[in-house]
Amino acid sequence: MTRAAARTSSAGVRGSCSQTVSLDDYLALCKEACDDEIARLYGDSDAAGGLRDLILDYPRRGGKALRPALGIAMCLGLGGHLDAILPTAATLELYHNAFLIHDDIEDESWWRRGEPTLHIDHGIPVAVNVGDAMLSLSLQPLLDNVERIGLGPALRILRAVSHMTRRTVEGQAIELDWVRSNTWSLDDADYLQMVELKTSWYSFITPLQVGAIAAGEGPDRLPALEALGRHLGAAFQITDDLLNLRADPDVYGKEIGGDLWEGKRTLMLLHMMRRAEPAHRERAAHILAKRRPTTDGEAGLVELLDTLTRRGDLSATGRAAIRAFCTAQHVSDPKTFDDIRWLHQLMLDVGSLTHAKRVAAHHSRQAAAILADLDWLPTSHHRDALAQLVDYVHGRTR
Amino acid sequence: MTRAAARTSSAGVRGSCSQTVSLDDYLALCKEACDDEIARLYGDSDAAGGLRDLILDYPRRGGKALRPALGIAMCLGLGGHLDAILPTAATLELYHNAFLIHDDIEDESWWRRGEPTLHIDHGIPVAVNVGDAMLSLSLQPLLDNVERIGLGPALRILRAVSHMTRRTVEGQAIELDWVRSNTWSLDDADYLQMVELKTSWYSFITPLQVGAIAAGEGPDRLPALEALGRHLGAAFQITDDLLNLRADPDVYGKEIGGDLWEGKRTLMLLHMMRRAEPAHRERAAHILAKRRPTTDGEAGLVELLDTLTRRGDLSATGRAAIRAFCTAQHVSDPKTFDDIRWLHQLMLDVGSLTHAKRVAAHHSRQAAAILADLDWLPTSHHRDALAQLVDYVHGRTR
Repeated sequence: MTRAAARTSSAGVRGSCSQTVSLDDYLALCKEACDDEIARLYGDSDAAGGLRDLILDYPRRGGKALRPALGIAMCLGLGGHLDAILPTAATLELYHNAFLIHDDIEDESWWRRGEPTLHIDHGIPVAVNVGDAMLSLSLQPLLDNVERIGLGPALRILRAVSHMTRRTVEGQAIELDWVRSNTWSLDDADYLQMVELKTSWYSFITPLQVGAIAAGEGPDRLPALEALGRHLGAAFQITDDLLNLRADPDVYGKEIGGDLWEGKRTLMLLHMMRRAEPAHRERAAHILAKRRPTTDGEAGLVELLDTLTRRGDLSATGRAAIRAFCTAQHVSDPKTFDDIRWLHQLMLDVGSLTHAKRVAAHHSRQAAAILADLDWLPTSHHRDALAQLVDYVHGRTR
Repeated sequence: MTRAAARTSSAGVRGSCSQTVSLDDYLALCKEACDDEIARLYGDSDAAGGLRDLILDYPRRGGKALRPALGIAMCLGLGGHLDAILPTAATLELYHNAFLIHDDIEDESWWRRGEPTLHIDHGIPVAVNVGDAMLSLSLQPLLDNVERIGLGPALRILRAVSHMTRRTVEGQAIELDWVRSNTWSLDDADYLQMVELKTSWYSFITPLQVGAIAAGEGPDRLPALEALGRHLGAAFQITDDLLNLRADPDVYGKEIGGDLWEGKRTLMLLHMMRRAEPAHRERAAHILAKRRPTTDGEAGLVELLDTLTRRGDLSATGRAAIRAFCTAQHVSDPKTFDDIRWLHQLMLDVGSLTHAKRVAAHHSRQAAAILADLDWLPTSHHRDALAQLVDYVHGRTR
């Protein structure tokens, strides 16, 4: 971002200090300032295999830039400067988008924010490298902090980010391990602990904490923000998982029910496994143990073989040989559409969605109460934005 | 690593100051100290989805730990302490292994150091996350440096590592872009520039430079080490690419000719495209434009369909329908074994391997000359180890 642009954006977020500003406008201003900062960081990477455009691809698709907004609102709400938090906000957004790119590969997702995922557009090799680029390059803004906010706060932010990344990859590892080892005997506490690691630290706790550090606050402010961020993370992730179940790619920008295909251990799925009668639980466990189809085409091949057999173009022996070959390639049968529909219906039948909504609402209320109790955060439209964000995290519909 | 273990390892690398030590022994001592440091970093990650064992998997398979050894030798050779360089050495090794894990996914490699690659063993999702974990967690040792070597040198090392990661992902992006856009009109200078970015910074320049910084040397020492590392990187990568062409998995721990299947723009391939007669160049370009087969099984399916057709279990119509279906899935024909063999023979015919060996030898000699000229690096067995490493990088057979 040019200095002039920095001042304009800063004026944008700050300018409405005295008037009411909608959350959408507030988020849009934060996103603009943060995207400019990211673009500035990669200003000279044009020659390097198109890396700059690839790095800016996901941020340019929209998204709320929730994490930068949390950091900016906390920093400005505590009387800090936009310049003091912008490099760190850019780092948070880079981490988030790097995780999105790699998650999309890990989850075999095809859609992100209404467009094909990066690995579908450019192949897995490029997508892995672009995510690595964003992770690797996120260190530079944190070093720029030394000049902007001084050595002490810059080091505290580096330590906070280091802590954050460790928690995040641990949470992701636990979730992947549950799927791979077909673990489903887990309760709400197990799920919430995993979500705290996977989601709360990088999406809520750290953004809030680095905002306070950039504003010059001491370590005594951090525990309350950790508690606030933990509850926000739980409300956010449960809501996200609920949205995934009813997702329409046009609205939500993700695949329909991708979590079920993937076998993700959501609060709803785990509740269902605890509440379902034994025979249903057994069938559900059997489905969950099946792999995800590798492509849409995999189901298509079976249909084609059926057609050829009916027409007499393929003998029963030939059909069996081809199926055996394909099975050997893929080791086992994949989940089917019927499997997914059946799991979804069972969740509804045993009240798992209602349960999840109740838990999300609880954590949202807890977050609102903690925010209301922060007597060291002065009244301002930044504090208002944080309060609206608490509502948004729980009440969002996309 | 416990303090006691640190002292033992330190004594190991240091103990032989007055006697001759083989390069293998020197490397083994450096690797042991570095692996202990990495293990210590992840001492409490046991519960997190088996992340600790996954992170330690590649380092435990052996490997030379070349990058830590370069940093340790430079630091100790300049009178620095092992404790001063060990955290940074661990970071370098973490980056290297993270890049290996992600490269193996990007290159669709099946073998690494004589065992299945991490994504073959544990699936792409886990492998992407383990690489991310290693990238993310590599920040912590650099923050530990503040206590070990003081704020100034710690910040200089952070900046050096930030610079290094940017260069590395840029180099990787250029190489991937050449393959994806089927660019082959490139000369030695293009290749060497890409290799400087992709290989020299993270494998040679930065390890040497952080060794000097950890020993308390000032910025005036760094340009000579940059030049030394650049030549070493060129010699190393060309040698690596030559080994890939003749690779036997038992010896080299990688796939045979994987670079050719992948269409990597090596010095040999680019030389061949410049030297081959027009008809051969055209055929080579056509082959390079073909994709890599997705699995060994892809070729197997064609054979199976042939057998079924011969036996009368599959009609010609049925065979065509199945082939059309598979082609639609994969868009285009893949490279074949014959293609790869033909490319390899053409390289031999036009002298591309001889040319590459000559260029590697040139850069190896340049590196040796620069090292010999470093009059501020005292004579010691650490300096001897560096000199042997220059020979090893060029002369290695695996």
